Amino acid sequence: MSKKNVLYCQSGGVTAVINATACGVIEAARQNEKIGTVFGAKNGIIGVLREQLIDTQQHSDTDIAALRHTPGGAFGSCRFKLKDLEKQKAEYNRLIEVFKAHNIGYFLYNGGGDSSDTAFKVSQMAKAHGLDVICIGVPKTIDNDLPITDTCPGFGTTAKYIATSMMEASLDVESMAESSTKVFIMEVMGRHAGWIAAAGGLAGANPNEPPQIILFPEIPFDQDAFLSRVKWSVESHGYCSVVVSEGVRNAEGQFLADAGTKDAFGHAQLGGVAAVIAQIVRDALGYKYHYAISDYLQRSARHLASQTDLEQAYAVGKKAVELALAGKNSTMPVIKRLNDLPYQWEIATAELKDMANVEKMLPREYITDDGFGITEACRRYLQPLIEGEAFPPFKNGLPHYIRLSQRLTEKKLPPFDI
Amino acid sequence: MSKKNVLYCQSGGVTAVINATACGVIEAARQNEKIGTVFGAKNGIIGVLREQLIDTQQHSDTDIAALRHTPGGAFGSCRFKLKDLEKQKAEYNRLIEVFKAHNIGYFLYNGGGDSSDTAFKVSQMAKAHGLDVICIGVPKTIDNDLPITDTCPGFGTTAKYIATSMMEASLDVESMAESSTKVFIMEVMGRHAGWIAAAGGLAGANPNEPPQIILFPEIPFDQDAFLSRVKWSVESHGYCSVVVSEGVRNAEGQFLADAGTKDAFGHAQLGGVAAVIAQIVRDALGYKYHYAISDYLQRSARHLASQTDLEQAYAVGKKAVELALAGKNSTMPVIKRLNDLPYQWEIATAELKDMANVEKMLPREYITDDGFGITEACRRYLQPLIEGEAFPPFKNGLPHYIRLSQRLTEKKLPPFDI
Repeated sequence: MSKKNVLYCQSGGVTAVINATACGVIEAARQNEKIGTVFGAKNGIIGVLREQLIDTQQHSDTDIAALRHTPGGAFGSCRFKLKDLEKQKAEYNRLIEVFKAHNIGYFLYNGGGDSSDTAFKVSQMAKAHGLDVICIGVPKTIDNDLPITDTCPGFGTTAKYIATSMMEASLDVESMAESSTKVFIMEVMGRHAGWIAAAGGLAGANPNEPPQIILFPEIPFDQDAFLSRVKWSVESHGYCSVVVSEGVRNAEGQFLADAGTKDAFGHAQLGGVAAVIAQIVRDALGYKYHYAISDYLQRSARHLASQTDLEQAYAVGKKAVELALAGKNSTMPVIKRLNDLPYQWEIATAELKDMANVEKMLPREYITDDGFGITEACRRYLQPLIEGEAFPPFKNGLPHYIRLSQRLTEKKLPPFDI
Repeated sequence: MSKKNVLYCQSGGVTAVINATACGVIEAARQNEKIGTVFGAKNGIIGVLREQLIDTQQHSDTDIAALRHTPGGAFGSCRFKLKDLEKQKAEYNRLIEVFKAHNIGYFLYNGGGDSSDTAFKVSQMAKAHGLDVICIGVPKTIDNDLPITDTCPGFGTTAKYIATSMMEASLDVESMAESSTKVFIMEVMGRHAGWIAAAGGLAGANPNEPPQIILFPEIPFDQDAFLSRVKWSVESHGYCSVVVSEGVRNAEGQFLADAGTKDAFGHAQLGGVAAVIAQIVRDALGYKYHYAISDYLQRSARHLASQTDLEQAYAVGKKAVELALAGKNSTMPVIKRLNDLPYQWEIATAELKDMANVEKMLPREYITDDGFGITEACRRYLQPLIEGEAFPPFKNGLPHYIRLSQRLTEKKLPPFDI
């Protein structure tokens, strides 16, 4: 049996373009005679443990091509951590059994920082067992916090969505501000690193344009400085638009969202950090406010995909298959920037061990001295990542997304309890 | 002086396509020799009272054409109510003075229900003063609650945005639900009428597809029925997507958002109704949840405009000028549906007095018997309104919107205090 199969897992929070990566994997595999089939694990590593594998041979070339324009995770993803060493051992043994039972020669793990760690451990485990399985990590995360790679597939589309939304909502607020809402607050994801918050800064060309304030997780929240800047913006421009990262912390290092979740009587408060910021503005300045929480919308907005992001997402999937076939165990395809303007990039290869458990924070030089905006260096970095439009096909006025059949391949092993 | 000028006001909450209406007004006026110029009032009626008028002769044809794809209110809008009779009299007298000073022959008032009332009053006032000013209302509101007209410009784009967002976010939740978020809640606007909430229902074709639950302002919130449906959805589909109108009320008629804004100690709670619903789910069922509040994003999402909506927004602007020139005082161009599929419509004319102060609620037959979904009749009504894509031009990865110069025309009157 010389042909080996690919096992592809989606892991962690999904993105608007992770399925484009799946598409890159499957299309590359279909063109290679050394590969048998590609199995998608149902709900990521959970599906491997449960031996819930989706044989993509059931999907036509047209269906697979449609993954390129479909957000979410077509095979299901998961947030799952191996709990303790003893349990972990049983789980690793189970992985081996599943790999053997389904003739898996290539294990492709599509995720963020935690996932790189998992993929790396699986590769070590396979080696220790003398198992001939090549483990490849495939990058993905809207948080853009993986090291080494220029950017992470998924981020560019989120960045484009956030910048567009901030631009549009600010035009709205600006036209209402004379007699209505004066402060608009948009909460964005990125609990540790401020990349998404920074992307909101692309909506305007300078501090006079919205967002007039960005609150980064990297900069401790200074309430007085914040309020005086809100006041300045309202007095100078008539309104103030604010991007706030869900991960903003006070000087003591507490998340503002958490700090606001209990009142003096210990009652849980509702709402996230946007509501906390809104209340601070209202109490101190009395301005009428509105706030938006785009939540999952920002990571699934495939209708507004960045063409750059889409191409990179596809390319890392394709390259992962090439690395697998070349026997480059324990590696990850990454994006290497060759030039800013015009943006030029290529796919390079990193070691999984160097990718795991390292978070790339927004550099201080990407944030203006006052802590409320982005610098030219930051714009130069971000700008290419949102370039180009890649609208999905539409049908009856809505994006025409595909739902792949989830029919499972026949099990060959006894059940495993996770 | 036979040529008269047009005074155009934007009023109330702006939309993604109200500027397309402005474009229709100005382009139609430019093609007619009987019209001098079009003044845009800065910030609506406030700008008329303050004599802050923007002469659109300063804007090139290209700039005016760009209004067609620019969200927000290009001249500024307002929420402003005449306060009392005595004050009101002074304000009406001031309007007359401004009309006379700037040779206004046509007063075009672009707004929703309250605005129809204002436009109607102005037309009565003008008539009483023997003033030769034709007053025309121009429809606009994402709430879709004006009577007589088939739909309100602005609604179709909001509907398309909400349905798309629900579809995309649900693909995300569905792929995470096995080990993470099981309930996704999206809060939408529409404090009194459930049209926007209903539009969320277009994301899925039946109650098994997301959103599995819609909470309408027209249906009193039944917590037990709601929770049992959430449970059913999670157990049957693995997850549950919920659209909730900001205007949902409990059986006593209180807004849920208000009902949740104070705890037993009278402390203000943060967050809107999405947070209240999320807490109800968490407390009763313990499911992990996420919620989004699209807020102003839903009324400014020009990047995802409905072509139908855009065409109608432009058409009512153009028609308003025609009605004005034809001397049809105190009327409003409205949309008349001729056929559902294919959608055919034309512009008809309504009397302003019939438009004012009437809210068109979602008919009960548009809501399923269980109160949680939309019926086929509702789909037949909504479907054409989101049809067609009208993407704006993009530049550097972002929509290329225009900001019109706001240079004011020279004042001819003494200041007026409002």
